[in-house]
Amino acid sequence: MPRLGGIEAGGSKFVCAAGSGPQDAEIVEFPTTTPRETIARVAEFFASQEPVEAIGIASFGPIDPNPQSATFGYITSTPKRGWRDFNFAGAVTDALAVPVAFDTDVNAAALAESRWGAARGLRNFIYVTVGTGVGGGALVDGRLLHGRLHPEMGHILIPHDRARDPFAGNCPYHGDCLEGLAAGPAIQARWGAAGHLLPDGHEAWDMEADYLAHGIVNWTSILSPQRIVLGGGVMQREELFPKLRVRVTDLLNGYLAVPDMVPPLLGSRAGVLGAIALAAGAPLGG
Amino acid sequence: MPRLGGIEAGGSKFVCAAGSGPQDAEIVEFPTTTPRETIARVAEFFASQEPVEAIGIASFGPIDPNPQSATFGYITSTPKRGWRDFNFAGAVTDALAVPVAFDTDVNAAALAESRWGAARGLRNFIYVTVGTGVGGGALVDGRLLHGRLHPEMGHILIPHDRARDPFAGNCPYHGDCLEGLAAGPAIQARWGAAGHLLPDGHEAWDMEADYLAHGIVNWTSILSPQRIVLGGGVMQREELFPKLRVRVTDLLNGYLAVPDMVPPLLGSRAGVLGAIALAAGAPLGG
Repeated sequence: MPRLGGIEAGGSKFVCAAGSGPQDAEIVEFPTTTPRETIARVAEFFASQEPVEAIGIASFGPIDPNPQSATFGYITSTPKRGWRDFNFAGAVTDALAVPVAFDTDVNAAALAESRWGAARGLRNFIYVTVGTGVGGGALVDGRLLHGRLHPEMGHILIPHDRARDPFAGNCPYHGDCLEGLAAGPAIQARWGAAGHLLPDGHEAWDMEADYLAHGIVNWTSILSPQRIVLGGGVMQREELFPKLRVRVTDLLNGYLAVPDMVPPLLGSRAGVLGAIALAAGAPLGG
Repeated sequence: MPRLGGIEAGGSKFVCAAGSGPQDAEIVEFPTTTPRETIARVAEFFASQEPVEAIGIASFGPIDPNPQSATFGYITSTPKRGWRDFNFAGAVTDALAVPVAFDTDVNAAALAESRWGAARGLRNFIYVTVGTGVGGGALVDGRLLHGRLHPEMGHILIPHDRARDPFAGNCPYHGDCLEGLAAGPAIQARWGAAGHLLPDGHEAWDMEADYLAHGIVNWTSILSPQRIVLGGGVMQREELFPKLRVRVTDLLNGYLAVPDMVPPLLGSRAGVLGAIALAAGAPLGG
């Protein structure tokens, strides 16, 4: 098996790995600072390792993952200071002189879960993370879904009953889109405490399941997945899974088959392992 | 060019065509009655024509378009009397002894618009029809989107402000899903008159544009299309297009690029021409 590199770029930390998969990947992480300093640390990590044949980058977004585009490999309209319009793939190519693959963090995680995790062998499934944001990646007929750029599955608009939940939503672009209602910061803002501090059985979890179930119904109606893998910090609350299954079944009401809803198997390593899978030339969809 | 056949199966009428595309297709239509009688009329039409090499079927749904499935070619859970669990592709194969392709009416229309119509050359776009229902088909990276079965784009759940619009929605499965709020029968039920009888400038059209704009935002967030082609009886109201462009731009709020929104070019022939395109072995996605 080829020795490959993976870079998972998040807004607050970078994770780098070298190896061929979950069985042998060596993994390090460090904080995201400026692009210059951060790329230097990436280069330092790979210099300390046996050479790799290619590197995959799994990046926070929005990004341009289209190899035909003039801005391929760029992070585009992020509000994150210093990273907007940064030629990420170009900087890694310059620093390390190996072929580079580039996609979203959630597409990479989807690829990793399909290769080594909770969606092994499936040609149609969705990977969703619910944490500081709500994001998703998908395999459609065995290939990563891109469209014009890439999905932004958390920014869909869903019913919001303001009598039940007066919280206005905190997405800076859309207010009460799914992410604005259901990501970790929304839970914190609505209940005055981070999700992990709220007890099992708190009404927050029924509400959370209700919003996510609406997202699942919409993703399912549009993509007809076999399975939905739900990860991220918020989904570590195990009682969400049975609540989701009940609520999604209720909302679909027999019209469509209820997709499996399961946690990921690769946990926090999904992104960086997905970056390795990207490097392997796994479906890039471009 | 090969001579091919197309069958567009709707709940109230069947359209059959023989030819190679828009330039030479001979088209007939007749009412949908029982499967036995209707298939006999299909056979009669093709017997009256020069032989065709293959036939594509563009069917109302839900259907099973997966060639790997045991119920490939069946209409599945339709409420339409006599057609539930009907082996449609099998019946056509038996009657006409030619290879048969089978997909949804909206996927076929999407394929026709991509080959000869308003989406020529695009690899990522959505075709939506707003008429007695709301349905959609999509090309993803040049291939028809199926997923596990096929999309049901009209059954997504969107915000519904009951203070502004007390109408409860009339989808028999979901009440106020997009179809239940915005298809022709919803307009009729809400305003007490069929849409084509309501004047330009009636408040119905602002409301209609608002619901459809929420659908477009959700489809766009999930599939990232280059263009959305909007057809069907309701979309013949031309003022909907500028209203949609304004409302979608407003809702996306700069976060994602606004997709083109245009009418189809093939009009009521899109379905049956798409059936011919299916017959040509165009992307079946299976």
